[in-house]
Amino acid sequence: MTSSTIVAVATPAGVGGIAVVRLCGPEAESLALQHLSASTLPPRQAVYCRFDDIDDLVAIRYAAPHSYTGEETVELSCHGSPYVQQAIVQALIGSGARLAEPGEFTLRAFRNGKINLSQSEAIADLIEAATPVQHRLAVSQLRGGYAQRLEGFRRQLIELAALLELELDFSQEDVEFADRGQLLRLVAELKAQVASLLASFAAGNALKRGIGVGIIGRPNAGKSSLLNALLGEERAIVSDTPGTTRDTVESTLSLQGLPFRFIDTAGLRQGADPVEQLGIQRSHRAVEEAQIVLCVHDVQLPWQAPEVDLEGKAVLTIVSKCDLAEGDTLPQGMPLDAEVIRLSAKTGEGLDALRAALVQRVQTLVSGSGEVMLTNVRHYHALRQLEQALLAVERGLQDAMPADLVAVDLRDALYHLGSITGEVASDTILHTIFSRFCIGK
Amino acid sequence: MTSSTIVAVATPAGVGGIAVVRLCGPEAESLALQHLSASTLPPRQAVYCRFDDIDDLVAIRYAAPHSYTGEETVELSCHGSPYVQQAIVQALIGSGARLAEPGEFTLRAFRNGKINLSQSEAIADLIEAATPVQHRLAVSQLRGGYAQRLEGFRRQLIELAALLELELDFSQEDVEFADRGQLLRLVAELKAQVASLLASFAAGNALKRGIGVGIIGRPNAGKSSLLNALLGEERAIVSDTPGTTRDTVESTLSLQGLPFRFIDTAGLRQGADPVEQLGIQRSHRAVEEAQIVLCVHDVQLPWQAPEVDLEGKAVLTIVSKCDLAEGDTLPQGMPLDAEVIRLSAKTGEGLDALRAALVQRVQTLVSGSGEVMLTNVRHYHALRQLEQALLAVERGLQDAMPADLVAVDLRDALYHLGSITGEVASDTILHTIFSRFCIGK
Repeated sequence: MTSSTIVAVATPAGVGGIAVVRLCGPEAESLALQHLSASTLPPRQAVYCRFDDIDDLVAIRYAAPHSYTGEETVELSCHGSPYVQQAIVQALIGSGARLAEPGEFTLRAFRNGKINLSQSEAIADLIEAATPVQHRLAVSQLRGGYAQRLEGFRRQLIELAALLELELDFSQEDVEFADRGQLLRLVAELKAQVASLLASFAAGNALKRGIGVGIIGRPNAGKSSLLNALLGEERAIVSDTPGTTRDTVESTLSLQGLPFRFIDTAGLRQGADPVEQLGIQRSHRAVEEAQIVLCVHDVQLPWQAPEVDLEGKAVLTIVSKCDLAEGDTLPQGMPLDAEVIRLSAKTGEGLDALRAALVQRVQTLVSGSGEVMLTNVRHYHALRQLEQALLAVERGLQDAMPADLVAVDLRDALYHLGSITGEVASDTILHTIFSRFCIGK
Repeated sequence: MTSSTIVAVATPAGVGGIAVVRLCGPEAESLALQHLSASTLPPRQAVYCRFDDIDDLVAIRYAAPHSYTGEETVELSCHGSPYVQQAIVQALIGSGARLAEPGEFTLRAFRNGKINLSQSEAIADLIEAATPVQHRLAVSQLRGGYAQRLEGFRRQLIELAALLELELDFSQEDVEFADRGQLLRLVAELKAQVASLLASFAAGNALKRGIGVGIIGRPNAGKSSLLNALLGEERAIVSDTPGTTRDTVESTLSLQGLPFRFIDTAGLRQGADPVEQLGIQRSHRAVEEAQIVLCVHDVQLPWQAPEVDLEGKAVLTIVSKCDLAEGDTLPQGMPLDAEVIRLSAKTGEGLDALRAALVQRVQTLVSGSGEVMLTNVRHYHALRQLEQALLAVERGLQDAMPADLVAVDLRDALYHLGSITGEVASDTILHTIFSRFCIGK
């Protein structure tokens, strides 16, 4: 693959004070100089000059390998007019540059060994991060993250493999260099470590995508008022986006830096007509997706236990419309041992308690996960396959299979591990990863 | 006014590969260094460093007065995540910077004498330019534009004033130093030059805002099909924006780099019911706003002359639905001397001829205007007031008014001229101009 010179606008699309056009590849400097009034671009120096008759701008060259991509790079800070941006990109394409594919700059950084694959993915996460916690997760992954732990796994696997391969070399002589008991202990320990990393995925992924909060309760129990009251005061950082299923609306809200995704549902009621049944199916789905479920009960109506399966969910019981009842009134027949938040969307009573409870539930969810958290779906699946391969190795050792068969499973394990950091990465995987990026990164 | 240190994101809002945060003012460097892992920022050098725990970025310092604003400036190229951008801005505000007002960086450039007021306005135009012609007009104004011509006016006015003021010093003695005939010739010449600049405004403003094209014709004459056919093939550079009157929709289209604004109108018909009457009023308004009017006639219906006043407009007569008639058929009763474009939105016949005719009409419109074109409404009004003041000076001289009275009108003329380049500019004018800018410029 010959590395051509690519060009793209690196800043967000639209109108702004300034924009940056990035040019990268062996011809970056010479292509730029064809258009610039400057005669030379000393590395890392801001040079004010004219680009054709299009704009006056600042050009900075980053000499290989001391650039983001590791290749010759020129960045042009021009006026942030869509016309100027496009005219500059077109002029450079006219001179022989090629428009960059999405993520192609970062792909080059990866291919040139500036970053590993998991760091490339962290850059995409970093760019998309909308809350402090999401940002922290991405930065931690970018600065190494669980790469160290994966490196530990790899060393242990290679040690195992080395012992087995040695045996293999002498297989004709039926020698057994490796102590099978010791190998089994090594595999078991590795499996436990992989399992613990896998266990952190639920929390890590929730933090990255937003912690799903389902709101359930009978029709008119006050679910929407509750949501509006919660969102209302934080309107500035709230956005309504159509849910992935297109029939629920999700609202996102950041509390103490934690991203919450509220899944608004139709009221729950059994034996309803077909249209309501559809709503109930939606509710079930919303609860399924949620990590936290708010069960809302009208203080004026008799208690009814929720009709959906809440197994494994963090549940918060809310008694709503408390402004309509006296003192500490609870719904008639409500079990007294339930922990309850008394709320009035009208007066705002209980909102702070609800917020605190939401944050506390997330802290519980996260606290089991230790320092390092798995946030990336691709890594999760690779680790799951690593776990399967380790299981096969374990069985092979237990069943005293021939070393060469066990070695196959071990190489499989190493392959899945390597796919996370990119030591082994097919073009398909690379394409999937880098097409997530915007053009210009 | 103490100049504080201001900060803002200078790149377009949104998600991108990179974003630039700009910090400007006396404390720019020291504020930045409080957060950066770098210990010093040599001028115009790209320094790769860490900003708190938020991001790894490239910092560049521009030392005063060699910066855009003329003040100490630090630009931080960070990852283009909305969170990172905001976190960096917030951190700098936390250390004592202030969020910049819209256009405040450019306002400082103006106050520090880096650019004049008309150039500041050109920067806003440049950023908003969407077509090559709009871009060229803005660049020409940014690089001086008619500033040279205005400077010529100013010299002549000052010369006039000097002659009159000299007379004034000796007014007790009833001396007449200035030859009134010569003064009158000077004023007449100046007036002619101002008038020619004013005359270029119609074309200049049309090019800047987009050349208004009204489409008129009876209901169902094929107006919308014509517009769709024109826009259809150029969909990529088309946008539909609600008109300023909110009851017409404007579509913009760029042909050979010229910006056209199509004003879609209700069909024209007299004696219609009240609702249709409203539509007709809209059509009249659309024609009023347009520089070019397309009169659309169905080839199958008898000719009817347009019922609106087309005085002073460039008119193109279109015979539509030509696929429904044979050969060169024209509407029955159509005057034979009319220049006609035969069009079929269905087959695409005549579309190229229409495009060429539109471009040609604009070239006619523009060709009368010479090299320099007035594009700015504020400048137009200032020149109109200059013209009025010159008229008063002329009358004063003709009526042999005392020199001190004529001098008042002359100073008035100089004031209006100075308001264009900003030598005399009130805070109100400055506020109006710079609030047009985006934050970060």
